[in-house]
Amino acid sequence: MRILGIDPGLRHLGWGVIDVEGSRLRHVANGTCDSDGAAELSLRLLSLHGQLTRVFETWRPDQAAIEKTFVNKDAVGTLKLGQARGVALLVPAQFGLSVGEYAPNQVKKTVVGVGHADKAQIQHMVKMQLPGAVLTGPDAADALAIAICHAHQSGMQRMKVRA
Amino acid sequence: MRILGIDPGLRHLGWGVIDVEGSRLRHVANGTCDSDGAAELSLRLLSLHGQLTRVFETWRPDQAAIEKTFVNKDAVGTLKLGQARGVALLVPAQFGLSVGEYAPNQVKKTVVGVGHADKAQIQHMVKMQLPGAVLTGPDAADALAIAICHAHQSGMQRMKVRA
Repeated sequence: MRILGIDPGLRHLGWGVIDVEGSRLRHVANGTCDSDGAAELSLRLLSLHGQLTRVFETWRPDQAAIEKTFVNKDAVGTLKLGQARGVALLVPAQFGLSVGEYAPNQVKKTVVGVGHADKAQIQHMVKMQLPGAVLTGPDAADALAIAICHAHQSGMQRMKVRA
Repeated sequence: MRILGIDPGLRHLGWGVIDVEGSRLRHVANGTCDSDGAAELSLRLLSLHGQLTRVFETWRPDQAAIEKTFVNKDAVGTLKLGQARGVALLVPAQFGLSVGEYAPNQVKKTVVGVGHADKAQIQHMVKMQLPGAVLTGPDAADALAIAICHAHQSGMQRMKVRA
């Protein structure tokens, strides 16, 4: 099963793809979709939509997962993130995939073991769990962490169903 | 020139189309794209994207305008609105149109004459300025008001260029 994780953002939208076989995880690819901060908002969203569509076309995931956005104190930032997140949720739905949503502390708890972990810790644990992965940036690393979290959560659900 | 105004929202997304010839405005159509509050978020956004795409295909506007979202006190509401707004901005960009953005009080000032007007006042003034228009709902009325605002603002810009 192939999982694509998404860390949404208007300027930088991270993505990461992993393969899951039983309890084994394998890194496939990771990267970032960027938009030009000086461009018109609708064109930025169009660009992100096009880039993320190409990621789905290239890597053909079976499932998708996205970070459940923690709401910023800064309302303008929340709105910007919301707009990018709208596009990030639309693309998997256009490919017929449902989207798992995970809160940041749930992702950290699954990947690092504690709910509060810094970026360096997350990157370290992502590399540990995906040997050979070359992380292209912090947003891509977060996206891989979201994919790992989804793999564990759906694995646990399968075990519960069996039990 | 044909203008399509959008009042973005996750549950109800209003739209309204007007034709502009010189200083004359004519109502063309208005309506609302709805999404099921019980459905998964990505499917709601997919549904809104599909409905709004059909509106653009049917009415073929030359320009688009959207309400510049006032940020809610409620951050969760701001995020929801942001997600719907992301899709609402994406669709015109996919049709190659730039999108005029207008703050709610700018729309009200243009259509009603004052920055603070209630829904009933807006609907009254929209009907006055678009004789024969049958308003299908409050969100569609707001969308027509946004289209009217865009027509006036772009008309004023043309006059400034001439002067």
